Amino acid sequence: MTGPNSPDWPGRLARVAGDLSARTLDALVVSAPANITYLTGFAGSSGLLIVAPGDARLLLDGRYHAAAVLARDAGRLAPVQLEPVAGTFVEALAAGLSATDCRQAGFEAHHVTVATLDSWTAALPDLEWVRTDRLIERRREVKDGFEVAVLRRAASRLSGVATALAGIVSRGLTERQVAGRIEETIERAGFSGIAFPTIVASGPNSAHPHARPTDRKLASGDLVVLDFGGVLDGYCVDLTRMAALEPVNAGARDLFEAVRQAQTAALAAVKPGVAAADVDAAARQVLADLGLAGAFLHATGHGLGLEVHEAPRIGRQLSGVAEVLAEGMVCTIEPGAYVAGVGGARLEDDVLVTAGGHEVLTTAPRDLLVV
Amino acid sequence: MTGPNSPDWPGRLARVAGDLSARTLDALVVSAPANITYLTGFAGSSGLLIVAPGDARLLLDGRYHAAAVLARDAGRLAPVQLEPVAGTFVEALAAGLSATDCRQAGFEAHHVTVATLDSWTAALPDLEWVRTDRLIERRREVKDGFEVAVLRRAASRLSGVATALAGIVSRGLTERQVAGRIEETIERAGFSGIAFPTIVASGPNSAHPHARPTDRKLASGDLVVLDFGGVLDGYCVDLTRMAALEPVNAGARDLFEAVRQAQTAALAAVKPGVAAADVDAAARQVLADLGLAGAFLHATGHGLGLEVHEAPRIGRQLSGVAEVLAEGMVCTIEPGAYVAGVGGARLEDDVLVTAGGHEVLTTAPRDLLVV
Repeated sequence: MTGPNSPDWPGRLARVAGDLSARTLDALVVSAPANITYLTGFAGSSGLLIVAPGDARLLLDGRYHAAAVLARDAGRLAPVQLEPVAGTFVEALAAGLSATDCRQAGFEAHHVTVATLDSWTAALPDLEWVRTDRLIERRREVKDGFEVAVLRRAASRLSGVATALAGIVSRGLTERQVAGRIEETIERAGFSGIAFPTIVASGPNSAHPHARPTDRKLASGDLVVLDFGGVLDGYCVDLTRMAALEPVNAGARDLFEAVRQAQTAALAAVKPGVAAADVDAAARQVLADLGLAGAFLHATGHGLGLEVHEAPRIGRQLSGVAEVLAEGMVCTIEPGAYVAGVGGARLEDDVLVTAGGHEVLTTAPRDLLVV
Repeated sequence: MTGPNSPDWPGRLARVAGDLSARTLDALVVSAPANITYLTGFAGSSGLLIVAPGDARLLLDGRYHAAAVLARDAGRLAPVQLEPVAGTFVEALAAGLSATDCRQAGFEAHHVTVATLDSWTAALPDLEWVRTDRLIERRREVKDGFEVAVLRRAASRLSGVATALAGIVSRGLTERQVAGRIEETIERAGFSGIAFPTIVASGPNSAHPHARPTDRKLASGDLVVLDFGGVLDGYCVDLTRMAALEPVNAGARDLFEAVRQAQTAALAAVKPGVAAADVDAAARQVLADLGLAGAFLHATGHGLGLEVHEAPRIGRQLSGVAEVLAEGMVCTIEPGAYVAGVGGARLEDDVLVTAGGHEVLTTAPRDLLVV
């Protein structure tokens, strides 16, 4: 699958406008930054986007407006109207919605705070505000050709970083030093930045899934969790590999092998039409069969894209609606097992759901790196 | 002013509980991560804290719970009850609020989304939810002795990074390379990480306040904005210095001097009892008098603490309530001027409001670094 050279912002905006018509909304106010990026290419920290049929207005303050005009005129931003915000965003929003002759507007209920909605309601007393639930996040779950091409390239580069771990992980370095070297390698691989602070968790620290790197030195017998990610052209990839320092005891090796089996089982379950909860259950069952039911402390994976954690969530079904995998979704598969006194293990790869099943985008060997 | 060795979490929790009694609330649900950190020391990405008079419960999922128990027992976390979240956070919240016999609960209206409040309301139909507005953020504005000591130490280290710029900025390096070297210097200075992605904006790029580093090489005649920050013991500091590559034309030098004068005027205005808008106006007036009224595209500063942007905002008064400076507040003072065709300039220091006026915590020289 190859994609075009730039995102299809007009197509994305048109599809959202179509979603609105189906709901008799005159406009949608988009406030979640990643959703604004998805629809327009704008990637600053604040802004509001008004989408109406045939009309899109991006409201930006003085820190961003001028640069956005240049970017739009150079084709690096969607061809939207750019409205400078001189006073408050609420005032600019009121002006923008009046200009689109809006009577019923949707808002993003999973992003807009109660205080913000109160302020919008006060500024626009005649407008009816209608809750919408992850309209754009649901569109973002299924990647288009452009996005798949970027994610494939990013995953390939991150696999190169994983391969370089053999030259990085070494006895006597602290967790922080190892994390620093991994992050330098990510930068040198051409990523624009790290996708999240790198996790290097050794020995007893590895038993905590979200440990932060400390000044602990890697020592004999340690299991070491190495979890890192990069951002390329705005898209996030995420990978975890395991190292162990000789002599590796049998318990540590068994823990690693259990997680590898769980990951293999979960990967095998990934295909269109399968419930995400069933992929999670595949990993969980392997660990339970090995007596590690209580050791798997998180979900099996999460979607990847403009955000490092996005839909679909690959975990137990928590609400009434089942999340079902579809062609074009990209997610992590990352089971783990964490045992106090022994340590923890996690393996993580990034996978694309294809028509025929799946394609693992991160190709680095999954073997235990014994140092 | 010297502070104790660890934050006074019990005192902070007691003051919030006092705020609740004054409002006849039985409990407050704290969801903003930085507020949870402030009250308990927990710094993970998700969790909920229930504060009631004489009772504090921190709800954490499996990724964090075990590590939090160890941290609490070692005194690195407030002595709160730790409740593991096995199912959803909504279920755990319902159980926790029932345990505290709560009938009227406050929520953080500037953090809780409309969707979240809807789910809490559905799960607890007999509870009355009461909007609260930045209760804990207002407490966080005024730093205690522990916080001032950390921020003073952090600002001193960041000043060392600024002094090192003379050995970093050089002709022919790209903006990204310079940013990378600044970030390495921040790590070596002992910070736990950067406070935000470093800004290096050269030549025409410097005319955009929030430019991101590109592959543009620093070239003769450039003005270069260097804006960077670090996190030490959880607290953020933030500093901007300017460089210029010879030959420096008169327009660029005048722009720099205008910004330096504006910053000097704003700093001179900082003292307890002064409206933040008046500090902003002091900088704005200097620039207006020099014909740069339209070139100052952002506010003069922002508070610093557990977040790199927090209250107080040092800018034009946008709402009906004036923000007034008080002893113990720590904020940036960072006017700038941005002129298409010439470039941009910004200078930023971190300042503590003291009983007698203010203390500039970042001590690096503010001169234009000519390379």
